Amino acid sequence: MEELDYLAGERKRAEFDVDAMKIVWAGSQHAFDVSDRMSRLVASDPAFRKDNRPMLSRKDLFKNTLRKAAHAWKRIIELRLSEEEATALRHYVDEPAYTDLHWGMFVPAIKGQGTDEQQKKWLPLAYKMQIIGCYAQTELGHGSNVQGLETTATFDPDTDEFIINSPTLTSSKWWPGGLGKASTHAVVYARLIVDGKEHGVHGFIVQLRSLDDHQPLPGITVADIGMKFGNGAYNTMDNGVLSFDHVRIRRDQMLMRVMQVTREGKVVQSNVPRQLVYGTMVYVRKTIVSDASTALSRAACIATRYSAVRRQFGSQNGGPETQVIDYKTQQNRLFPLLASTYAFRFVGEWLSWLYMDVTQRLQAGDFSTLPEAHACTAGLKSVTTSITADGIEECRKLCGGHGYLCSSGLPELFAGYVPACTYEGDNVVLLLQACVARFLMKTVSQLGSGKQPVGTTAYMARVEHLKECRCSAQKAEDWLKPNVILEAFEARSLRMSVACAQKLSKFSNPEDGFAELAAELVEASVAHCQLIIVSKFIEKLQQDIPGEGVKKQLEILCNIYALALLHKHQGDFLSTGSISSKQGSLANDQLRSLYTQVRPNAIALVDAFNYTDHYLGSILGRYDGNVYPKLYEEALKDPLNESVVPDGYREYIRPLLKQQLRSARL
Amino acid sequence: MEELDYLAGERKRAEFDVDAMKIVWAGSQHAFDVSDRMSRLVASDPAFRKDNRPMLSRKDLFKNTLRKAAHAWKRIIELRLSEEEATALRHYVDEPAYTDLHWGMFVPAIKGQGTDEQQKKWLPLAYKMQIIGCYAQTELGHGSNVQGLETTATFDPDTDEFIINSPTLTSSKWWPGGLGKASTHAVVYARLIVDGKEHGVHGFIVQLRSLDDHQPLPGITVADIGMKFGNGAYNTMDNGVLSFDHVRIRRDQMLMRVMQVTREGKVVQSNVPRQLVYGTMVYVRKTIVSDASTALSRAACIATRYSAVRRQFGSQNGGPETQVIDYKTQQNRLFPLLASTYAFRFVGEWLSWLYMDVTQRLQAGDFSTLPEAHACTAGLKSVTTSITADGIEECRKLCGGHGYLCSSGLPELFAGYVPACTYEGDNVVLLLQACVARFLMKTVSQLGSGKQPVGTTAYMARVEHLKECRCSAQKAEDWLKPNVILEAFEARSLRMSVACAQKLSKFSNPEDGFAELAAELVEASVAHCQLIIVSKFIEKLQQDIPGEGVKKQLEILCNIYALALLHKHQGDFLSTGSISSKQGSLANDQLRSLYTQVRPNAIALVDAFNYTDHYLGSILGRYDGNVYPKLYEEALKDPLNESVVPDGYREYIRPLLKQQLRSARL
Ligand SMILES: Cc1cc2nc3c(=O)[nH]c(=O)nc-3n(C[C@H](O)[C@H](O)[C@H](O)COP(=O)(O)OP(=O)(O)OC[C@H]3O[C@@H](n4cnc5c(N)ncnc54)[C@H](O)[C@@H]3O)c2cc1C
Ligand SMILES: Cc1cc2nc3c(=O)[nH]c(=O)nc-3n(C[C@H](O)[C@H](O)[C@H](O)COP(=O)(O)OP(=O)(O)OC[C@H]3O[C@@H](n4cnc5c(N)ncnc54)[C@H](O)[C@@H]3O)c2cc1C
Repeated sequence: MEELDYLAGERKRAEFDVDAMKIVWAGSQHAFDVSDRMSRLVASDPAFRKDNRPMLSRKDLFKNTLRKAAHAWKRIIELRLSEEEATALRHYVDEPAYTDLHWGMFVPAIKGQGTDEQQKKWLPLAYKMQIIGCYAQTELGHGSNVQGLETTATFDPDTDEFIINSPTLTSSKWWPGGLGKASTHAVVYARLIVDGKEHGVHGFIVQLRSLDDHQPLPGITVADIGMKFGNGAYNTMDNGVLSFDHVRIRRDQMLMRVMQVTREGKVVQSNVPRQLVYGTMVYVRKTIVSDASTALSRAACIATRYSAVRRQFGSQNGGPETQVIDYKTQQNRLFPLLASTYAFRFVGEWLSWLYMDVTQRLQAGDFSTLPEAHACTAGLKSVTTSITADGIEECRKLCGGHGYLCSSGLPELFAGYVPACTYEGDNVVLLLQACVARFLMKTVSQLGSGKQPVGTTAYMARVEHLKECRCSAQKAEDWLKPNVILEAFEARSLRMSVACAQKLSKFSNPEDGFAELAAELVEASVAHCQLIIVSKFIEKLQQDIPGEGVKKQLEILCNIYALALLHKHQGDFLSTGSISSKQGSLANDQLRSLYTQVRPNAIALVDAFNYTDHYLGSILGRYDGNVYPKLYEEALKDPLNESVVPDGYREYIRPLLKQQLRSARL
Repeated sequence: MEELDYLAGERKRAEFDVDAMKIVWAGSQHAFDVSDRMSRLVASDPAFRKDNRPMLSRKDLFKNTLRKAAHAWKRIIELRLSEEEATALRHYVDEPAYTDLHWGMFVPAIKGQGTDEQQKKWLPLAYKMQIIGCYAQTELGHGSNVQGLETTATFDPDTDEFIINSPTLTSSKWWPGGLGKASTHAVVYARLIVDGKEHGVHGFIVQLRSLDDHQPLPGITVADIGMKFGNGAYNTMDNGVLSFDHVRIRRDQMLMRVMQVTREGKVVQSNVPRQLVYGTMVYVRKTIVSDASTALSRAACIATRYSAVRRQFGSQNGGPETQVIDYKTQQNRLFPLLASTYAFRFVGEWLSWLYMDVTQRLQAGDFSTLPEAHACTAGLKSVTTSITADGIEECRKLCGGHGYLCSSGLPELFAGYVPACTYEGDNVVLLLQACVARFLMKTVSQLGSGKQPVGTTAYMARVEHLKECRCSAQKAEDWLKPNVILEAFEARSLRMSVACAQKLSKFSNPEDGFAELAAELVEASVAHCQLIIVSKFIEKLQQDIPGEGVKKQLEILCNIYALALLHKHQGDFLSTGSISSKQGSLANDQLRSLYTQVRPNAIALVDAFNYTDHYLGSILGRYDGNVYPKLYEEALKDPLNESVVPDGYREYIRPLLKQQLRSARL
């Protein structure tokens, strides 16, 4: 039997080796193999079915997630999967679950903040899932401001214990995933109080539930915080609320790698520097950046395929109508997002390298690159997650009415994705307070002082040149030159930072200036982060990339990424004089012609993500393009269609039609 | 007992008469009275409870909506409410229902397209709800391209009937609200075929279900199209799918105001001009514009109040932390949205006037203003709904993590709102193909030909001046002058349109040019529409507006609206030379100082919307600001909290913790 493929024609048009691109996307042949195998394993196992999620009640939805998590773990054990494979398998199950927090936050927290003995005690339990852990930092009253947490951990020298307590309503832990129903343990952040004195916020391993019957231990009150955005989405997760009524834990359950409390109640700073926690943050945020590229790529894959299937208007002489992907407006909305998925992918790859580099340096006692690495990871987390969240919604709109159906996969992708803009640091707070803007202002203030800017701020050393240089583009094709693009982005970023610094210097109290100019500082931070992404894409292209036509396609995408940004932020480029308006207009002409070049390759470029239909979870994004009959089939599964005459007709429709409402009991 | 009001301090700071502003917002004292009475009526009736929606299954959710719709109708009859009051009551029930389509589309379609006899026959049935109607235009394969609809209506002269048929899968009607389960009738759009000849798409009144038992009539297949975005949101609506197998209807069920088919099978154009349908479109879209202002105002109200309650960072000497509304970044994201709600309100008011004006002219046989009115309504629909959709999501993000909870009200507001960007014309298609861009290009091409541009394009008559003029702003305060703002927006819009027209003229085939330059044309259309909104706001302020300090506040909001737009689109203003970069920077300085002015009035400005807590449906937006205890209460209502140990523990958690998964059946 011939396999159905409505997109076969599109696939034939591709001008590059799709299989080679798959390797580039995955990062390596090995990474491709693992991801390919695991995604098929999940897709072929009916236990991992997920298309029914929107129809389940909260309780059934959650129970179903518990089942899948257990089944996944069972398969991981049975098949003796490696850590890498297990992670990939969980990823392709594609359902937020308590295990995400167990593996993604609880274990890393112990690894990062626990002493060797603590690691030896707790990690084996966690690795075997004999305990289930979560990460309990945020409280009802405090998220961004971690130093403002209210939970207390008071040392009791008599019993050698800490007393964990929630003194106020707002001090309840609120949000931690996996906390509400599944976790037996948590890393709890609390203000350390020893001998009446405060010593800042630290992590404590606290057992929450009995390992016999899962009942909360005495003094512990725990519950789920209720429904969240979307119907499936993050509602598979038991984000929880937790309060402590003087709960006692052993002293050795404080995570003591950085600071210790001794038997005698002495608070001792260890020789491990505090900056170490930055290392963990870099780790978690680099993961968020690669997740951003994944989430956006799924949306772009759906919208691209459906835009090639969907036809609307433009029929000539009774022939087929125009594929909507051929409309320039559709291209102008879609292709920059497609380019962004690749851009985010490569900057994510680079962050993995950066994390490795930082880790090695830390081990060698070199902390010099940490602040820069920390700032740039935070900034990239913020910029990529914001674009991804908006981009998923844009992809949904690109699918017209049908994008609004759950069966398009896009509503749930969006609802499940958006919290990435908030957790692990609110995106605005990250850009402003936490790191990027402050780091940039510090860097600018040190220019000329002899201290060389490092890493992603190295370009600032060329401050004199970048302040004065004029863009050399004279015709549209000049905008294909990496150095022209790079210099424009560098000039824009540097000039925005310098302008902020100059304005700041006029305030007698720098903090007042910082508060007043916050919005501009955020814009300068965004400009700097966009430059990083553009430059890492360009660097990637300087490598050897095998596969026929592969590099060429990536060059096109890189240029689309940069020129679409340039157009979107034209105000920045023009107001800083980094380009002229004529040059902006040339860049836009070039952009249009790049769209034409990428168009025949669009389907192949999303095929390169190598997503199974199970993982995509979208009728509109089906590999075979067989959209319409399947939309129909899917619709008929809705429980509302169990009867043609709806439940409620007799009570609420008939009396109305029959003008008998007056006497009806409603 | 003292009433709790955590925001009392904020309310005292207001520098204007809130009650007077309520009248301005409502449009008149009368409109305020109606809306105030109806919103309280709904809020005080437990039958209209809506906080449990996220927890209901699709079937229960839908049944519940049927109940509310019947109850609302019962109250409307019992209380003998006027049409205006009934509309307001339905609005405050705040739940998409089949009645929206019955009153909002079915009735207007018959009014607009039915002959006098047809109206006499059908309207009384519809007014009494003896029949329930929907509007069935879109098909699985065609939405935007109405001329491409595939359903056929073939005249059979032997029986004096039309045969309605769905020849293909893609010709099934798909999306109409109220169609799936509730409607007994539909206005169905189909290609008219008489004597083998096609006569375009027309509307037909078709009965779908028996009035005895609600069973679909022979030849009719109808169902619900399944779950949509969000858990409550639009899932209360039975958007449906419908196909016809040679269904026969009487000839007089074709809506014949514009075109008739006679007993003999002659197709006769009536003397009513086709443009009349534009009138209905202007009506529907003006409603969408005022709905945009309402939806955005709800989100802004929630985010503003919560931003005043929420404190994070900045505690000095143990005092309270800073209210997040005091951060400039928060203001920079929130206040332009607050200003937009007022801007959209006033442009909506003006559209009501425009609709009246157009209707009166039509009655007098004057069609001259119709194209302009049609273009500007379509453009304003597009621009206001896009900003509102994005704005609601931004308001959600402004609430940090808690905005992600359903109990914040924001997720459902978003999910229920976004289809407004798609229905009644996809926003991009509206700007480009349907009307705005084409109308602008036509207007530009006729400049200098003696034909004066009318209505909202009148400014284009000053083409020579606007092409050359230079913005006069020299200091930040100059940006408070309405004429400075207006001229900058006019120059930007005109220059963008003229630039497009010039580029277009270089193409030998104008349609090729139009296709190639589509993205730029959309930008020019947006610029024109933004100018309309700014200018209508300014016009409003030239009226007499009673109430202490009211006008002053509106002036501040008007300036914020305009200057925030100017900053966001600075690229347009600079590249067209409409302002200099120095002037752009001054405008931004002015904007910051406007934020400071609006800050103490922010809470009062959202109080002026006069929303009940029931209508807002948000814990974060509660009038009294008593957020935290109520978040807690709400969380505990989740069905998942019925037991502390979750359903599924025994099967899926315990075996895992006890390392007994191998033998478990999952
Ligand atoms: C789905 C989800 C899962 C989560 N999982 C976990 C978890 O497992 N464990 C855990 O501990 N936590 C978790 N969280 C909590 C999350 O980390 C916090 O929500 C996040 O840190 C943001 O803090 P907040 O909610 O207090 O926002 P807020 O800080 O209250 O932010 C509200 C608004 O104020 C603004 N703002 C705040 N401070 C400033 C400032 N200084 N300057 C300018 N603007 C400011 C913000 O930009 C935002 O617009 C989760 C949250 C979500 C939504
Ligand atoms: C919640 C909801 C309720 C609805 N209620 C009703 C109802 O009661 N009755 C009814 O009849 N219909 C209803 N509709 C259908 C609605 O009117 C259509 O979805 C809408 O007209 C868009 O058409 P489409 O879905 O075919 O989008 P498409 O036209 O398929 O659009 C897909 C993409 O193609 C692009 N595109 C299409 N044509 C062009 C072009 N010429 N140039 C550039 N780009 C183009 C669009 O911009 C979009 O990005 C409803 C829809 C929704 C979501």
